[in-house]
Amino acid sequence: MMNIGRYRLGNDTKLKLTSFNPEDTHELKSKEEIHEEYEKLLKRLEEQQDRLFASSSHGVLIVFQGMDCSGKDGVIKKVFHGINPGGFRAYSFKKPNEEEARHDFLWRTHRSVPARGYMTAFNRSYYEEVLITRVHGQISDKEARKRLKSIRHFEEMLTSQNIRVLKFFLHISPEFQLQKIHERMENPEKLWKFDPNDLEERKHWKAYRTAYEEAISRTATKDCPWHIIPSNNRWYRNYLVLRILVEELEKLELAYPQPDVSVASRLETLKEERS
Amino acid sequence: MMNIGRYRLGNDTKLKLTSFNPEDTHELKSKEEIHEEYEKLLKRLEEQQDRLFASSSHGVLIVFQGMDCSGKDGVIKKVFHGINPGGFRAYSFKKPNEEEARHDFLWRTHRSVPARGYMTAFNRSYYEEVLITRVHGQISDKEARKRLKSIRHFEEMLTSQNIRVLKFFLHISPEFQLQKIHERMENPEKLWKFDPNDLEERKHWKAYRTAYEEAISRTATKDCPWHIIPSNNRWYRNYLVLRILVEELEKLELAYPQPDVSVASRLETLKEERS
Repeated sequence: MMNIGRYRLGNDTKLKLTSFNPEDTHELKSKEEIHEEYEKLLKRLEEQQDRLFASSSHGVLIVFQGMDCSGKDGVIKKVFHGINPGGFRAYSFKKPNEEEARHDFLWRTHRSVPARGYMTAFNRSYYEEVLITRVHGQISDKEARKRLKSIRHFEEMLTSQNIRVLKFFLHISPEFQLQKIHERMENPEKLWKFDPNDLEERKHWKAYRTAYEEAISRTATKDCPWHIIPSNNRWYRNYLVLRILVEELEKLELAYPQPDVSVASRLETLKEERS
Repeated sequence: MMNIGRYRLGNDTKLKLTSFNPEDTHELKSKEEIHEEYEKLLKRLEEQQDRLFASSSHGVLIVFQGMDCSGKDGVIKKVFHGINPGGFRAYSFKKPNEEEARHDFLWRTHRSVPARGYMTAFNRSYYEEVLITRVHGQISDKEARKRLKSIRHFEEMLTSQNIRVLKFFLHISPEFQLQKIHERMENPEKLWKFDPNDLEERKHWKAYRTAYEEAISRTATKDCPWHIIPSNNRWYRNYLVLRILVEELEKLELAYPQPDVSVASRLETLKEERS
């Protein structure tokens, strides 16, 4: 079985995105090969979510980042399909509004991190504050590095509070992105997703890549690793994310708690009442 | 096909809960009879959610109320299984914290109502402020009626802003509740759900019933109807809620929007770039 460690970045990594192939599917040829395993993984995720909620000892924050059209919406839809929505939330972060922009750069996302017992997915995140802002020259390199340090500290704090932070970079090629934009423009049911701005932003592809490489390199730690997910093939992307997530959750060894009340005598009373 | 109107309460209704049978499954004998239709309804819900999100013309607030063990968690899990979690949120309202309690009684729930484009389920809601508080004598009957008027106005405002409000009362019998509590106490994986307080609260069954009857009667309107869902049979409960929800969404006639940008010329440029 394939080791997911090859997609993980922990401490002291100097990331070069060009050394990751966005077409990679390891030794797998098609979706059909993992269909059965995928269904089992979905069941395992459901089981883990139930334990997470019951134990309330940990929370899980799952951060998705990637270029436009890399499939952040899609991965959330497909991996968390079947999850109990009572214990899960997805937040999408667009351009900050006026109030948010007046706050420190971690303020608006911090409000949405999960409580213990919950799982939360961020579709974009505080990382945008060192990506889009940097590419468009709104912050200096020095400011970006300061922010990256703050992000590392923020994630350390969350981890120490039992909020597990898992980060995924959905890695696509510029050609794949163009193909997706094209599809959106030609399909009447997808046209609403087309944003002319995407065509502008893709001109900055290299600047984004550089900004991502530094952001990821400086914030990949043993406790809060990044995962580089080859995402030109959606089925492989979904499979990898789901597998990493399930394996990480199982490592937490979440157990159903024993309530701190005496049940035995109450159960007796109840049995008498019902008989 | 069964008409769901029989479970709906609109204007000028004086609700008597005893005239609804919590065991009712209409002409259906078992889950198997609706299995196929249920799967189709789930697909229709997914389709409607996609249109809701794309059009962003409406939001949908789904309120679940019911006695302890009536299945509020369960219905959220089963009906919204398969929904895109990117456009859906579930909020559960327990005892207000100090800050919340210092605010007006609609403050904390108002913060969580859906934006246009989104669907939100409330597991308990602002209705608790005229139920549990009233049963325990924390508010007078006069205050309860004032609040019920405010709730009607609040829901009218939401409706006028294109936030559709759908309300469901999950109707169970006291015997069914006792059976559920018993099950929780005997199953190690469900024991964490057991709250000794449930055994206390059930002593107030009649007071709750009266409070519910008045709350529902005074807030069932043509635009913001209540639905009384027989819930002793979980499969029928899920089926009814799902069907009502899908039919209500389809009535909105949600359409994929045409973006306000000229796509044609951009598409030509893009095709040249790719060839």
